[in-house]
Amino acid sequence: MGEIKTIEFKDGVLYLIDQRKLPNSYEIFECRTYKDVNFAIKDMVVRGAPAIGAAAAYGVVLAAKEFINEEKESFFKKMEEALEIISKSRPTAVNLMWAINRMKKVIENNKELELQDLYELLKKEADNIYYEDIETNKKMAKFGNEIIKENAVILTHCNTGALATVGYGTALGVIREAHYSGKNIFVYADETRPRLQGAKLTAWELVQEGIPAKLIADSVAATLIRDGKIDVILVGADRIALNGDTANKIGTFMLSAVAKMYHVPFYVVAPTSTIDFNIETGKEIVIEERSPEEVTHINGVRIAPEGIEVYNPAFDVTPHENITGIITEKGIIRPPFRENILKLK
Amino acid sequence: MGEIKTIEFKDGVLYLIDQRKLPNSYEIFECRTYKDVNFAIKDMVVRGAPAIGAAAAYGVVLAAKEFINEEKESFFKKMEEALEIISKSRPTAVNLMWAINRMKKVIENNKELELQDLYELLKKEADNIYYEDIETNKKMAKFGNEIIKENAVILTHCNTGALATVGYGTALGVIREAHYSGKNIFVYADETRPRLQGAKLTAWELVQEGIPAKLIADSVAATLIRDGKIDVILVGADRIALNGDTANKIGTFMLSAVAKMYHVPFYVVAPTSTIDFNIETGKEIVIEERSPEEVTHINGVRIAPEGIEVYNPAFDVTPHENITGIITEKGIIRPPFRENILKLK
Repeated sequence: MGEIKTIEFKDGVLYLIDQRKLPNSYEIFECRTYKDVNFAIKDMVVRGAPAIGAAAAYGVVLAAKEFINEEKESFFKKMEEALEIISKSRPTAVNLMWAINRMKKVIENNKELELQDLYELLKKEADNIYYEDIETNKKMAKFGNEIIKENAVILTHCNTGALATVGYGTALGVIREAHYSGKNIFVYADETRPRLQGAKLTAWELVQEGIPAKLIADSVAATLIRDGKIDVILVGADRIALNGDTANKIGTFMLSAVAKMYHVPFYVVAPTSTIDFNIETGKEIVIEERSPEEVTHINGVRIAPEGIEVYNPAFDVTPHENITGIITEKGIIRPPFRENILKLK
Repeated sequence: MGEIKTIEFKDGVLYLIDQRKLPNSYEIFECRTYKDVNFAIKDMVVRGAPAIGAAAAYGVVLAAKEFINEEKESFFKKMEEALEIISKSRPTAVNLMWAINRMKKVIENNKELELQDLYELLKKEADNIYYEDIETNKKMAKFGNEIIKENAVILTHCNTGALATVGYGTALGVIREAHYSGKNIFVYADETRPRLQGAKLTAWELVQEGIPAKLIADSVAATLIRDGKIDVILVGADRIALNGDTANKIGTFMLSAVAKMYHVPFYVVAPTSTIDFNIETGKEIVIEERSPEEVTHINGVRIAPEGIEVYNPAFDVTPHENITGIITEKGIIRPPFRENILKLK
């Protein structure tokens, strides 16, 4: 396949594949200011926890570039504001905060530098986050591939591929690796309402890669699981609590519950940057509620009547007892999760 | 509310609310031949097991009208063909076969009559099916209302309202009755992918009635059930086996499984005409697979990439052990289902 460049920073501009437009059109969204990045994350031009993290880091770089001619005091004040705004662009993904904190640390540790030099350091740290993500994904993919058997039928949810990360992907990265390593696999991809990341993005990546797959409505998955048609379920994560409870795209909990009922292995694939060491359980995770229009309209066309109210949570929390293992770049974490997650700290 | 006339037969024409166009536009689809009716059922101008049954009965009336000037032998041959074609317009709903069989019996028992007189008898039998359905729905609604508590939060799937029947509805009929009887209730309506009958039709009926409600993506339901936010789940049925296994809109099984796990009562609301006394279990039910375009396109707009395959079953089977009770016009059937269903025969 041609490489999917979800995120690219070149000559002071952040280029993003506009994921709102896929698969019908392939367009590049240009961010020239940190506010462009804030908009791109909020409006889901870029989405997927690891991709959001990397985009946010470059947002900080763009902010530094914007304010580089300010007095130092004013620069730091404006940077603080910018970090605050970017960090609030989406509330659930912890990678966003993790990336922002890495950038913040660079600023705090280098306040004495010339602003141009600080800018270079920030750019370097964003590049580190960028390249580490690809590296991390490839490591996860290798660990994950160990649990994929020949002829495996894999169910996945949302998009966790090259488009959700800097490259390769988390859950879809494992699927990619299994395919590249020569295994005969078959994928069922949930369409993932309301934003249809499965239908629009995962299906697009699977077609690009030539991986045998079928797209299904989200509520078909439960019958496939019950009927013994699924060997393993792989999903991504937006935030993982110390006890292993995992926030991920709405619909993940439902899959995990039915998988547990029918003894189908259920794996979360996520870099350790997704682990929030500050929270004990999933109860502490803020679940983003998004606009009703995501449910009442599709591609700008109204599908539900005027006057109907909507409940539209973007994520749900899968309790750790429904999770077989968490595949990270440091290996597969298995229960007891709290104990094994703390070993990583 | 203004009465919803899903189906109306007048002056030799069958008028159907075109449910493909709701909620954005309210249009009437006219059937002047039995082939128009066949098309209307296939293409889901009219849908919902009881509504399909009534429409099919009038389809037979239209066929009789078309062939009324034929020789008797030719008339019966052409009617046989017409009955065969209409009966195959959708494979899962048993009410379709049930209605066709009632019409067939009228023909078989009255072969000696003048064709004009036979036509009148057929018209009368179709009218019986029509008015019995409304009567049946009102009886079900009363039985069902007994299990709805004050302040109940009710989850429902697909559309089982006036639009799915001749009038009032099955599961949504119970909701209507609870609302009219002065109970304070709240409804969560699954949007019901792929055809979005929940978003398009149930939401429309709920808004028309002023029943407090929220529309949700199908995969949100599981978290509401887990979090104790749902008091009771009400769904319709397309076919019920002797042991209580129930075929209904895809997604019903998933709800029933999660409901069982979290001990939330799960009721099927359906007339006894939905019971197929010829099959022992749900394993014998043919599940209709519909076109991939229902998943890859929404309102004619492509949402998934070219080249992706689709698995699109229209129904799933909920095993009887996940069902708390079946609300019929003869009362609520509870386990042991086989024993209690056979008492109805």
